Amino acid sequence: MERKIKIGLIGLGTVGSGVFKTLKAFPDIEVTKIAVKNINKKRNIEGLDESILTDNPYEVVNDPEIDIVAELIGGIDPAYDLIVNAIKKGKHIVTANKELLAKKGEDLFNIASEYNKVILYEAAIAGGIPLIMPIKTILAGNKINKIKAILNGTTNYILTKMDVQGASYQDVLDEAQKLGYAETDPTGDVEGFDAAYKITTLATIAFKKRIKFENVYREGITNIRPEDMKAANEMGYKIKLIAFAQIDDNGKADVRVHPMLVPKSKTLAHIDYVTNAVTLSGHPVGDVTLSGPGAGEFPTASSVVGDILSIASEFGKTDYMLPMMRCNHSESAQMLDITETENKYYLSITANNKIGVIGRIGKACEENNISLASIVQKEFGSKNCADITVITELAKEKDMRKVIDIFNRDDSIISVNSLIRVQI
Amino acid sequence: MERKIKIGLIGLGTVGSGVFKTLKAFPDIEVTKIAVKNINKKRNIEGLDESILTDNPYEVVNDPEIDIVAELIGGIDPAYDLIVNAIKKGKHIVTANKELLAKKGEDLFNIASEYNKVILYEAAIAGGIPLIMPIKTILAGNKINKIKAILNGTTNYILTKMDVQGASYQDVLDEAQKLGYAETDPTGDVEGFDAAYKITTLATIAFKKRIKFENVYREGITNIRPEDMKAANEMGYKIKLIAFAQIDDNGKADVRVHPMLVPKSKTLAHIDYVTNAVTLSGHPVGDVTLSGPGAGEFPTASSVVGDILSIASEFGKTDYMLPMMRCNHSESAQMLDITETENKYYLSITANNKIGVIGRIGKACEENNISLASIVQKEFGSKNCADITVITELAKEKDMRKVIDIFNRDDSIISVNSLIRVQI
Repeated sequence: MERKIKIGLIGLGTVGSGVFKTLKAFPDIEVTKIAVKNINKKRNIEGLDESILTDNPYEVVNDPEIDIVAELIGGIDPAYDLIVNAIKKGKHIVTANKELLAKKGEDLFNIASEYNKVILYEAAIAGGIPLIMPIKTILAGNKINKIKAILNGTTNYILTKMDVQGASYQDVLDEAQKLGYAETDPTGDVEGFDAAYKITTLATIAFKKRIKFENVYREGITNIRPEDMKAANEMGYKIKLIAFAQIDDNGKADVRVHPMLVPKSKTLAHIDYVTNAVTLSGHPVGDVTLSGPGAGEFPTASSVVGDILSIASEFGKTDYMLPMMRCNHSESAQMLDITETENKYYLSITANNKIGVIGRIGKACEENNISLASIVQKEFGSKNCADITVITELAKEKDMRKVIDIFNRDDSIISVNSLIRVQI
Repeated sequence: MERKIKIGLIGLGTVGSGVFKTLKAFPDIEVTKIAVKNINKKRNIEGLDESILTDNPYEVVNDPEIDIVAELIGGIDPAYDLIVNAIKKGKHIVTANKELLAKKGEDLFNIASEYNKVILYEAAIAGGIPLIMPIKTILAGNKINKIKAILNGTTNYILTKMDVQGASYQDVLDEAQKLGYAETDPTGDVEGFDAAYKITTLATIAFKKRIKFENVYREGITNIRPEDMKAANEMGYKIKLIAFAQIDDNGKADVRVHPMLVPKSKTLAHIDYVTNAVTLSGHPVGDVTLSGPGAGEFPTASSVVGDILSIASEFGKTDYMLPMMRCNHSESAQMLDITETENKYYLSITANNKIGVIGRIGKACEENNISLASIVQKEFGSKNCADITVITELAKEKDMRKVIDIFNRDDSIISVNSLIRVQI
């Protein structure tokens, strides 16, 4: 490199600090300006010259000296406007902003393309795990048609704890909040928004067709019960919040986030606590699983810095930079609605312990084209009712919903406790 | 791309066929010449114009039209000479040749550098798993200091079968040979040579210091007994052939291939049959595990084609191509000898069922600075002897060898059955 590459950071929270500390090892790269929320905040970052801090992020965006802007604040506003302005001022962009990419990705990549700039975002999906760059470079010979992933550390932590301790969702959430593993308002994580943002962008990259975030089906983990964990375990499964994406030969995509029973023979069943993992299936490669830390100061910094070094390595070249890393997926994928999908299901029912209940469950399923793979009835102590656990064969979501309606109207069925899809 | 990129293949066996078939999907890339061993062999490859076949690989190397040569025959001779000549004729190289890279890598990369050509080799290590390119690009901000890997599918298949079926090494090997999962002469796999070639190159890339193959310690799986599998399982471990590499802060490297007891809490313990996996540890990323198919026609083709597309994407540029993918690790790492290492050990002993044996085992260990983490004695039916299983705390290899000598001389110890290192 002929001269130092100049970096502007927007955001000096957990990720920003990690990026700053990591970049110090690279003498050809210099962080020259950092936008922070509170310029008076006491910071303890070795080697940080506080005179480069500003509380006006447009000072970073407009600085003519800066080559690459790393946006590390998250959210849509003001991140979107900052990135657009930075591109127009001739800067390449590195971002960790999964929400922005999911909601405004197409727009941003079009602007970048118009100004011949690159937007890299390895850190936005699965933190430190190498994922976007491998898909775009060394796996470029593949047609990827399926993704199964654990993309949210908070929910995976909660589910692992529920499994290990037999504790309730609420108890584990309370503990996780005390330890700082879950936010005060945990909605974004536990309702699956975070994972849905990530699978939207990941599926877009992998399938080379734009997935619209509003078409991604989403269910969270708040209704998972310790009893479901126990029943799943006994049948050879673990319950995980799975981000799933599939595209068929006609280019129709099925993208969703919801809890799933994962067979213990699969790697994803063994990804515990805050670890993330992604299984990509494609031809010619087959199945590849990439796992590691999905968040945190240093893992996220690894990806941000990897993106910065990739841009820096090509800097000053006269030719078109990083051709494989460009994003131009203008064609939107046709999307399958959840009601059109086929799945295996785990179903937990509490019923009156009367003759004929099992028969009626079987009949309702049969009349709606649902075959049962297994059915287990356990007496529920002295209450004269029974817990019934069912695993179905592959069935239509539509048919399954009809059956649930029938069960809800059946007097001898006290409650439908859980309906969870099963990974095949 | 302005014109079609022209590819010459050397070898049209399993991998070569996969590469040819996969490249057909890319209209900007054309395979224009293929060197084969037997030009008269009946081939059934769709779209193959047999007039591009030659049995003289130098016709590929010397063809002025060819831009990239993919060497897919393996071994040192004639692969080395072919690659050197191809580079001198101005071609970039893609190779899947792990033995050549391990033994002649330094030499080849120096020649490539001199002629400003690139050698890519993603397929040489862990088949279809994205590994080399991620290390060199998106993980470039990291200091990687440890690698734990399953790099040989044949031995992992044998060990998995021994574990699942309780069968002996020899029985499983016979079956694997019948099914084509093991070669007629299985030495390269079962004695750990294949894994040692791969970890030599992988550690060189990850540590940015050249590892010499002849300094890599190597033990195979031929002495692993079903009894060891069973004992390991009972104590919460799986036995795997692990390729291990570590570098300390002074730059001293410890690189080796040998069986290890892997705790079931680790991902590598769940990598079964022919699947490969690599856990990289570094800062800032932490631990990342990449797993998938380590061999086979299509997975290997995925990596070869990924390398070809990466070179093709930059082709015709006037500037220095793929700067991050270059290899120039001229500094050799200082290497730790196996006798200088510290490990935890699993030890299986058969002893006469006499008073004092356990005491003598304990004393020999204590006098040689070895602490025992656990010791289990089981009576051995009617034979009046006992099976004793020991797991030690971290101990010096030197001390452990002394203790084994003492046991071998002890009249009340019938046999030292196994000594296997334990992954921490």
